[in-house]
Amino acid sequence: MIIVLKPGISRKEERSVLREIRKLGYAPHVMRGVARTVIGAIGDELTRANLETLLAQFPKAIESVTPIQKRYKLVSREAHPANSVIRVREHVIGGQQLHVMAGPCSVEGEAQLLRTAEAVRAAGATVLRGGAFKPRTSPYEFQGLGEKGLKLLAKARRATGLAVVTELLSETHAGLVAEYADILQIGARNAQNFQLLIAAARTGKPVLLKRGLSMKIEEWLLAGEYVLAHENPNLMFCERGIRTFETCTRNTLDLSAIPVLKHESHCPVVIDPSQGGGRADLVAALCKGAIAMGADALLIEVHPNPAAAWSDGAQQLSLDSFAQLMKELRPFIQAAGREPAH
Amino acid sequence: MIIVLKPGISRKEERSVLREIRKLGYAPHVMRGVARTVIGAIGDELTRANLETLLAQFPKAIESVTPIQKRYKLVSREAHPANSVIRVREHVIGGQQLHVMAGPCSVEGEAQLLRTAEAVRAAGATVLRGGAFKPRTSPYEFQGLGEKGLKLLAKARRATGLAVVTELLSETHAGLVAEYADILQIGARNAQNFQLLIAAARTGKPVLLKRGLSMKIEEWLLAGEYVLAHENPNLMFCERGIRTFETCTRNTLDLSAIPVLKHESHCPVVIDPSQGGGRADLVAALCKGAIAMGADALLIEVHPNPAAAWSDGAQQLSLDSFAQLMKELRPFIQAAGREPAH
Amino acid sequence: MIIVLKPGISRKEERSVLREIRKLGYAPHVMRGVARTVIGAIGDELTRANLETLLAQFPKAIESVTPIQKRYKLVSREAHPANSVIRVREHVIGGQQLHVMAGPCSVEGEAQLLRTAEAVRAAGATVLRGGAFKPRTSPYEFQGLGEKGLKLLAKARRATGLAVVTELLSETHAGLVAEYADILQIGARNAQNFQLLIAAARTGKPVLLKRGLSMKIEEWLLAGEYVLAHENPNLMFCERGIRTFETCTRNTLDLSAIPVLKHESHCPVVIDPSQGGGRADLVAALCKGAIAMGADALLIEVHPNPAAAWSDGAQQLSLDSFAQLMKELRPFIQAAGREPAH
Amino acid sequence: MIIVLKPGISRKEERSVLREIRKLGYAPHVMRGVARTVIGAIGDELTRANLETLLAQFPKAIESVTPIQKRYKLVSREAHPANSVIRVREHVIGGQQLHVMAGPCSVEGEAQLLRTAEAVRAAGATVLRGGAFKPRTSPYEFQGLGEKGLKLLAKARRATGLAVVTELLSETHAGLVAEYADILQIGARNAQNFQLLIAAARTGKPVLLKRGLSMKIEEWLLAGEYVLAHENPNLMFCERGIRTFETCTRNTLDLSAIPVLKHESHCPVVIDPSQGGGRADLVAALCKGAIAMGADALLIEVHPNPAAAWSDGAQQLSLDSFAQLMKELRPFIQAAGREPAH
Repeated sequence: MIIVLKPGISRKEERSVLREIRKLGYAPHVMRGVARTVIGAIGDELTRANLETLLAQFPKAIESVTPIQKRYKLVSREAHPANSVIRVREHVIGGQQLHVMAGPCSVEGEAQLLRTAEAVRAAGATVLRGGAFKPRTSPYEFQGLGEKGLKLLAKARRATGLAVVTELLSETHAGLVAEYADILQIGARNAQNFQLLIAAARTGKPVLLKRGLSMKIEEWLLAGEYVLAHENPNLMFCERGIRTFETCTRNTLDLSAIPVLKHESHCPVVIDPSQGGGRADLVAALCKGAIAMGADALLIEVHPNPAAAWSDGAQQLSLDSFAQLMKELRPFIQAAGREPAH
Repeated sequence: MIIVLKPGISRKEERSVLREIRKLGYAPHVMRGVARTVIGAIGDELTRANLETLLAQFPKAIESVTPIQKRYKLVSREAHPANSVIRVREHVIGGQQLHVMAGPCSVEGEAQLLRTAEAVRAAGATVLRGGAFKPRTSPYEFQGLGEKGLKLLAKARRATGLAVVTELLSETHAGLVAEYADILQIGARNAQNFQLLIAAARTGKPVLLKRGLSMKIEEWLLAGEYVLAHENPNLMFCERGIRTFETCTRNTLDLSAIPVLKHESHCPVVIDPSQGGGRADLVAALCKGAIAMGADALLIEVHPNPAAAWSDGAQQLSLDSFAQLMKELRPFIQAAGREPAH
Repeated sequence: MIIVLKPGISRKEERSVLREIRKLGYAPHVMRGVARTVIGAIGDELTRANLETLLAQFPKAIESVTPIQKRYKLVSREAHPANSVIRVREHVIGGQQLHVMAGPCSVEGEAQLLRTAEAVRAAGATVLRGGAFKPRTSPYEFQGLGEKGLKLLAKARRATGLAVVTELLSETHAGLVAEYADILQIGARNAQNFQLLIAAARTGKPVLLKRGLSMKIEEWLLAGEYVLAHENPNLMFCERGIRTFETCTRNTLDLSAIPVLKHESHCPVVIDPSQGGGRADLVAALCKGAIAMGADALLIEVHPNPAAAWSDGAQQLSLDSFAQLMKELRPFIQAAGREPAH
Repeated sequence: MIIVLKPGISRKEERSVLREIRKLGYAPHVMRGVARTVIGAIGDELTRANLETLLAQFPKAIESVTPIQKRYKLVSREAHPANSVIRVREHVIGGQQLHVMAGPCSVEGEAQLLRTAEAVRAAGATVLRGGAFKPRTSPYEFQGLGEKGLKLLAKARRATGLAVVTELLSETHAGLVAEYADILQIGARNAQNFQLLIAAARTGKPVLLKRGLSMKIEEWLLAGEYVLAHENPNLMFCERGIRTFETCTRNTLDLSAIPVLKHESHCPVVIDPSQGGGRADLVAALCKGAIAMGADALLIEVHPNPAAAWSDGAQQLSLDSFAQLMKELRPFIQAAGREPAH
């Protein structure tokens, strides 16, 4: 930790600060600068107290306290320099192939789901998405079909060979959802629901962790650390837009998170352009940008009849638009040095 | 809902839009303006489909769709024009008296908790706060004493007569925490963990719902609606700072939320200045502002030795600072036409 | 405008509202819905009063007032459905060719500038960037070489044939800067300095308008409207990152602004990945994303020795990195159906 | 500056970094920690190069560079420990008295202005506000009466004895506006228009500097530093709301800026609750909070007929509401240990 002292404090006050630093397990190292005196407190920050508490104890002597170690370990490139790959049925996510996960926002019924699954399979998707348990801003909105929805997802998997990703909403459902899904999705609203992250990790299934609406990347990596620290190495990060002041898109898709995550972490990166912009007309451009910037997979909302969708209709693509999109993406996949999964 | 059509669309396209509106259960009402044609779709928006899906179906014909009904009911002043009051043991929150809830960020042990409880009681607090289950950004940080912490809170209540507020982190602990606590706190990270809100509501205990880091007030009211819709009328909203670009405070305490909530809702409003600024030196000013603006209660972090605190030391007040603060607040409580609880 | 009335107001109050709407020049049109009464106020919103003032006059009767017309005209696709192209010397920006504008953050001296100009020309740039007048957060930082810098830019143009883009900081310099520059840049901090926009427009030179740090796209379009309304049709919008809570990048580059601007406006779109991320190591990925999403040009900071740069060293590319980048971009330009300018 | 090295770099790389640090004028001081090596670079940061450029030069060796000196001097409490007071005609701002500046958003005509001036004078205001030059988001909105407006302000001053604060929009008007105004206001959109700040400073008149929509407090202090560095010590900071994701208020008034500014700087602090919330119904609560938290003055929009205002009608108080407000504020002024100016 780096402790900056205020100008003009007495040597006696300085000695009190040094004494307290030693008490908390660090070796202090004093540097006298031109305008400020700085103390380097040497010791492993992950296993010792956070010295930021000194600010409260010495408000008149200390100007700032700055940690220097990164707080995440297992998700970091330092711990695992090569890219991680995740096996999902016969597929590998995070490798040479670019994967597309597609399907409806919510599972609404057998006909809707099977028709979508067949169409996205034919267009080149390898994973079927669809919400059986839905987190809804209002208690008066459709909350999902629950277990019935999970069974329909399994049926669609048998019919098409697609793998299945679906959201886990409650710790108490972890076993149930893991029975049906190939990938457990943790939604943006639950991205720091650590109990849920631990429950998901313990199922052993791959976990797709969406970024919270106002989560710094460091916090996101630390939330991912909960999964790896509970002995599940199969973690993907999924950027789905952050909350900003802009209102002409539902969220601001932070595509720069792709190179930042690739720099900090070894885990695969998935981009959700549907939630990211909240507008079907932006999905194609956002997919192209995501691929060009190094995403490993895309998560796209597709519905046979978006206008009749029970949730988030404004951002779902029709089956035809999706098939068209998949064709348009090919040159960008190639430019990025990847190949389409199939 | 109000549907604005794009300029220059054909009457045939317009008829298709009108047909679809009728199919979704609304009566369309056309107004031809100077630059745009506007359709008012008449029907109860809470029980019918959200017409925003029309944007995906008619991207070339429709410019925007705007709901006009408020999405929350039970938390609204329309439903309940008078202020709600909440009984917590012998106290009434939301009435004439201003309450102060105080205590350590985390329960760390018997001596720490009892000493704090006695000191805050003596200074005028009526509720003891203290985390037994702690949501921590990193898996390597102290996660709370769990049930042992709850038992210490109960012991402190017996010793001092203070009521107890503590955080509920997991659906699976709802029964356990409700056994010991007088008020269940839902933290900012779980403010849209709807399963947890439902579990908390079902215990029947008063619920203190913190605002999520980037939650719009409308979303917060809707999260509160989950509590009332599950037949628990005892809801308080607690503003604890929102996330903005500013970095010299940990969060930006949105004090304007007080008059906005008072305008929209009948539920009591609590302010947390400790999380709000993240700096002990700002707590006094933020408390004064909160009282002047109409808060019903304050939630303040206090620790016998902030520098040795196991969590969030930089924002906790010492026992002496808290006692001094309570004296300083008196003239502001009086100016606001309230009286201190005791 | 759409005026939503509060539930339960009397017919008398309603009549007062209607009377006031007529007085302000609109024809009111009443729709009685299930939960609310809505008034459509018909009239050209661009030439009449904004009815939002009614909220202050009738606080107990009116819930909300929503304009329905777009506030910009000349920058909009409605006014000019085809893409605009801008001639800059022998080049055309906004057409089939993708342009790269490159050069140092600040003009520091003849050797630095000429060496950079030759290198970026050789690598494929068509426009030289370089600040002669620099807006600096602190008065103690280097403020630019002023007219001397402009002369060096002109000299570099003669030597290399590159066009020149440089920032205009002060109304009083508009004539001077226009004498030397081919494109006038308006920086983020001045994006709503309307006097400066008008002065820039009046020079007749093409204007590159950066987005303000927290400017909504609607406000940005309206700032651009100032340029077109002062009879200068040669406007480019340049996205350079918005301010969000994320701190691991200097700004959050909002690449979704590209398809949004292309949808709303006919003006060319430029992306600045250097300011956007504030980190040299992110520039390549951001350029690729920008091209894939439809940008017409890139604005990249390049310096012969970034570590010795007088401003913003952390985000400038070296000459070699820039040459390497230009090669890497080729497949993405092709995938986007464009060709590199030269 | 503090330079953190990446783990695992060679001693040779480390020596290159140290050599460069010395070349840039700092004395390096190496501390070997448990997980990282940290270099303290000793030297006056205000007069030497910013070492952040090292990040570009040694991307594989350096993890982070952190300045430790504050970048502002003249506005800081370190430079001037006592509160500054500013004389405006017979008044003193920043002392024991709390001042209220009130008047219309725009000067619209003689009758409107004089009637408002007399009413706010009678209610207790000491300064008249009113815009003669108006920065408007759209070029089609009312841009102010210009010099005619200034003359009306001077006339109102003669009639009432109120001092006058009005906005300076253009460097070229600095002399003109200073001739009529007692305080020059720099608006939020121009808060980093450094040329304008310098022009305002040079008039010698007191400057009221509004906070930019997304300005960090550090940046705001540095903008203020431009005024003091150009030999004008009469600077006030005016918080008027920052831009956040919340949409139910026009801006989020950051009242915690009051104690933060009071801690960092000696300059008086003014609060603008009208712009801050954008809603007349929130003004009273925001004023009370501001006074309780230590504001030195308030800036309030008042209009004889808000519904007919030519700009920002929704946030202006009527003359009666203002008079009522002034009465309601008295107990809070007293609780804060201040007295009302008159």
